Amino acid sequence: MFLIHKFNTFLCRAATMVPCQVPRWSTWIFRASPQWQRTACALGASMGQQRWLSLPWRVSGPLAFRGCSSTALGVPRVMPTSERYPVQRLPFSVVSEEDLAAFERIIPGRVITDPEELEVANVDWLRTIRGCSKVMLRPRTTEEVSRILRHCHQRNLAVNPQGGNTGMVGGSVPVFDEIILSTALMNQVISFHDVSGILVCQAGCVLEELNRYVQERGFIMPLDLGAKGSCHIGGNVATNAGGLRFLRYGSLRGTVLGLEVVLANGTVLDCLTSLRKDNTGYDLKQLFIGSEGTLGVITAVSILCPPMPKAVNVAFLGCPGFAEVLQAFSTCKGMLGEILSAFEFMDAECMQLVGQHLHLARPVQESPFYILVETSGSSAEHDSAKLDGFLEQALGSGLVTDGTVGTDHSKIQSLWALRERITEALSHDGYVFKYDISLPVERFYDLVMDLRGRLGLRAKHVVGYGHLGDGNLHLNVTAEAFSAALLDALEPYVYTWTAAQRGSVSAEHGLGFKKKDVLGYSKPPTAVQLMWQLKALLDPQGILNPYKMLPARA
Amino acid sequence: MFLIHKFNTFLCRAATMVPCQVPRWSTWIFRASPQWQRTACALGASMGQQRWLSLPWRVSGPLAFRGCSSTALGVPRVMPTSERYPVQRLPFSVVSEEDLAAFERIIPGRVITDPEELEVANVDWLRTIRGCSKVMLRPRTTEEVSRILRHCHQRNLAVNPQGGNTGMVGGSVPVFDEIILSTALMNQVISFHDVSGILVCQAGCVLEELNRYVQERGFIMPLDLGAKGSCHIGGNVATNAGGLRFLRYGSLRGTVLGLEVVLANGTVLDCLTSLRKDNTGYDLKQLFIGSEGTLGVITAVSILCPPMPKAVNVAFLGCPGFAEVLQAFSTCKGMLGEILSAFEFMDAECMQLVGQHLHLARPVQESPFYILVETSGSSAEHDSAKLDGFLEQALGSGLVTDGTVGTDHSKIQSLWALRERITEALSHDGYVFKYDISLPVERFYDLVMDLRGRLGLRAKHVVGYGHLGDGNLHLNVTAEAFSAALLDALEPYVYTWTAAQRGSVSAEHGLGFKKKDVLGYSKPPTAVQLMWQLKALLDPQGILNPYKMLPARA
Ligand SMILES: Cc1cc2nc3c(=O)[nH]c(=O)nc-3n(C[C@H](O)[C@H](O)[C@H](O)COP(=O)(O)OP(=O)(O)OC[C@H]3O[C@@H](n4cnc5c(N)ncnc54)[C@H](O)[C@@H]3O)c2cc1C
Ligand SMILES: Cc1cc2nc3c(=O)[nH]c(=O)nc-3n(C[C@H](O)[C@H](O)[C@H](O)COP(=O)(O)OP(=O)(O)OC[C@H]3O[C@@H](n4cnc5c(N)ncnc54)[C@H](O)[C@@H]3O)c2cc1C
Repeated sequence: MFLIHKFNTFLCRAATMVPCQVPRWSTWIFRASPQWQRTACALGASMGQQRWLSLPWRVSGPLAFRGCSSTALGVPRVMPTSERYPVQRLPFSVVSEEDLAAFERIIPGRVITDPEELEVANVDWLRTIRGCSKVMLRPRTTEEVSRILRHCHQRNLAVNPQGGNTGMVGGSVPVFDEIILSTALMNQVISFHDVSGILVCQAGCVLEELNRYVQERGFIMPLDLGAKGSCHIGGNVATNAGGLRFLRYGSLRGTVLGLEVVLANGTVLDCLTSLRKDNTGYDLKQLFIGSEGTLGVITAVSILCPPMPKAVNVAFLGCPGFAEVLQAFSTCKGMLGEILSAFEFMDAECMQLVGQHLHLARPVQESPFYILVETSGSSAEHDSAKLDGFLEQALGSGLVTDGTVGTDHSKIQSLWALRERITEALSHDGYVFKYDISLPVERFYDLVMDLRGRLGLRAKHVVGYGHLGDGNLHLNVTAEAFSAALLDALEPYVYTWTAAQRGSVSAEHGLGFKKKDVLGYSKPPTAVQLMWQLKALLDPQGILNPYKMLPARA
Repeated sequence: MFLIHKFNTFLCRAATMVPCQVPRWSTWIFRASPQWQRTACALGASMGQQRWLSLPWRVSGPLAFRGCSSTALGVPRVMPTSERYPVQRLPFSVVSEEDLAAFERIIPGRVITDPEELEVANVDWLRTIRGCSKVMLRPRTTEEVSRILRHCHQRNLAVNPQGGNTGMVGGSVPVFDEIILSTALMNQVISFHDVSGILVCQAGCVLEELNRYVQERGFIMPLDLGAKGSCHIGGNVATNAGGLRFLRYGSLRGTVLGLEVVLANGTVLDCLTSLRKDNTGYDLKQLFIGSEGTLGVITAVSILCPPMPKAVNVAFLGCPGFAEVLQAFSTCKGMLGEILSAFEFMDAECMQLVGQHLHLARPVQESPFYILVETSGSSAEHDSAKLDGFLEQALGSGLVTDGTVGTDHSKIQSLWALRERITEALSHDGYVFKYDISLPVERFYDLVMDLRGRLGLRAKHVVGYGHLGDGNLHLNVTAEAFSAALLDALEPYVYTWTAAQRGSVSAEHGLGFKKKDVLGYSKPPTAVQLMWQLKALLDPQGILNPYKMLPARA
């Protein structure tokens, strides 16, 4: 009784949690809850109180966003990568007029050389990395990608595959003048089977649009992430993205059933099957999942979508300490079992930052830690009973001190926003040093506290949040501006600390340009050597996404 | 009311379902239900009425079984592979006295040359394939495997990795005189983390023993199969085994977190991490999952075990037609959602064969088809309510005409035995032509009916059963003895039929020796070529499991 009453109170309180100001670049990173589908406009219309969504934001991809956030809004130019980092251009050819003419014959009208458009595609989402490519190509078909790569291979021209350009490690933008090969126009659904839930689509489909498409047919995408409004499914596969549904639906290595890939020399590798099981030979598609554009260009994806859950609940809870967060997780797993679909955590500084920069209000009492627990199941009644049982237990035993539960679309969405928009809030806080690591959960928060002590006032904020259910910590340090001294205090410290715990120095973001040289903290030399051998086998000239993922050779 | 009454009746009826005779080779393929763990003996003791289990069967692996089922019981010798199939020995060296002495130095006392022991290891489980190896090696450690392979690589000696020797495609036994490298003594658990459920163990651990081990700690293995009492986890990973929990826990590509592998030249590749997420570089372990011993020898496995479900229910139901089987599957997915853990099907002829050869009684009225539906969840009450809802609906709408439900260990086990022991029953029926294919579920049973017409009296039985929930059909044809004419009637017919549906000619069993030349029905030439390139990269001399998996080169 008490419990129900208490949680009803929270419900009322949270309903007043509305943002106070129009955030600059929020629309396409705003979360659609699994139960609902909508365009940003439709959502704005249905949620009058969330004013920012009624603005006519374009959500057509990163270009739209870039257009208004960098040059248009007068944000300072990003330092060229080749100036900030000690990196040498490799002896690739330089794009000539003849090359441009050849591309124009392959994809008439879709060879982009306009400096404004290129400006956007040369800079990464975090605005920390900048290339100087002079041309972006926008193929529509696999055949076009194949002809482009055949040409580049013959001419020894380097190529940077680009999806939604939301990558976190500088893999999606050129380092020098690599040709940008964008999948933006490869955005067609090829087929959907509404009994099995198997979706086959081109690589450039935007994740959120796919989710909407399959939701209309009773399914959801097996992955979800804050960048959903811009990132492409091809980019997700190329980075082996984890995200917010990983705990429930597992890795793309299990849910991706088939891929079509164009190899460096233009050969089309068709592994685009739609079978749940296929043990005929080596599973070649696995080579390309998570290969960050260095082994081939993914042109189409076949993926298994789970049925849309009939009931979704989200509980946002305050915890008095990190030990309690861990215990709450164990209790959750035991009591919620198969309906647990997310267990996310954030610390008090994260909450402060989403409040300060995005004006999202805290829905519960101030606490050192917050957790977000999501259930997705097939019976609203059973799921609520299980969740109530957990909440009663967690509250009764002091694991949780305050909380609020959302069962309807808008409430669920507001609660998720607090967690999903941390990346965005951080990017408003200054230069961000980002670490995305896997650690044994017991040691999860020690590194954050350790760094606070170590960095002292040199850092603006040191925050920890992430996918606790998967052992994946996002550790972020903000400062007024990039500082080599701060970087020295952070690295290799963070990596050796992680390696000492046998953790991973990149849990889900990949290595790209920024993390390629730290691979050795998580992989032994034999593994690195085998990586190089695979690279040499599939891309002997090294034209695909050079300077990325593979560390400099010893 | 009616429903409950009706199902209670079934419960009583099924309780009388006891086998009437001691089956020859059943103990180690008898199923442990997820909720229980036991040795074969402990089980016999706890289930007095199941008489065969009280016999002192040795369950220590395939050798024990082989010992009593082939030579010991006077079963006719299997024709040597090199005589039955048109295959030429490749120019590998022949094992010399010096080689034996070198092995003896590496693994003293574990170099097996005794003909009786070799007889067992030279013949496959199905007794259709026979090699003539003169030596079997039984290392205990990774270091020993490494030294053995280094020697074989230097001497150009071919090697056949062998786990439990339960493979279905002749991959586990030599074709000529390849050295058998057995993992039987590599059976140590390395670590288990009882919060995360991550198990790290040597490759030769028997699946059933691992399941027992983790069950004692509140978890289950993410895979289960009829061969569990003999097959090794290394063999499971090497074949990317699917099995009975695939529908719920997905593929080993998602649940295997790390592998340790010894490469052809003896190099140890340590990718034995225990992280749920690790995007540092190419996911090298994927190369070895499903590579059937052709790219490296798996020496240790790190695998994520799901928590043991608190409640398990099994319903065994009769369906009037295949259309109803499919509809029951759709209804099941919708109504049971996240608790559905298996949906298996078998036709009337399968039931007849398990009755005839294993004396298992049919627990429900005779029907053209039977389905086995399993639920696993965290609340007995919620799960029963969901299952009852489904049964009421399925019975009311005529999808199901009769059924029985098991909730206790022994009943669950008896029901599962009907499905799990079909492979065994078939092997008593004569020579078995086995096909393990993935098809769109709509076309699942057409091929079985088609073949019955096509083969007429030439076949003893044409049966269909399998993992319907995964689109995986086991199509089996039995005959008095191997017949080239029957084979001609079956192949390539079955493969072209499957290819026309864009199916897979090997869903879960792999290619091994028997299916390697049909790879082209499911993979395009570019993929086959890339497979060869990978093989050449990792095993340039081709000493690892030659004559297997890769088709003859064009
Ligand atoms: C707000 C925000 C939240 C995020 N949350 C998560 C999260 O929860 N989990 C997570 O894992 N990641 C997260 N990310 C990072 C994540 O890597 C990307 O969002 C996404 O997976 C990248 O997709 P993209 O289409 O934007 O690829 P891009 O950024 O364009 O490219 C990423 C890499 O993939 C390569 N690539 C892209 N497309 C192809 C292709 N078709 N073929 C071959 N290579 C290609 C590029 O060369 C590059 O190396 C987040 C990012 C943001 C901005
Ligand atoms: C009754 C029965 C039921 C079955 N049910 C299923 C089922 O439901 N689903 C399914 O997928 N399969 C099933 N199988 C077949 C399945 O492939 C095997 O049971 C199992 O996965 C093989 O394990 P094993 O240890 O016996 O390997 P083996 O048979 O010894 O070897 C199989 C292959 O793997 C290689 N190999 C073995 N160990 C290693 C290693 N350590 N390193 C490298 N290579 C190695 C061998 O060289 C060989 O190519 C069944 C078999 C039987 C007899």
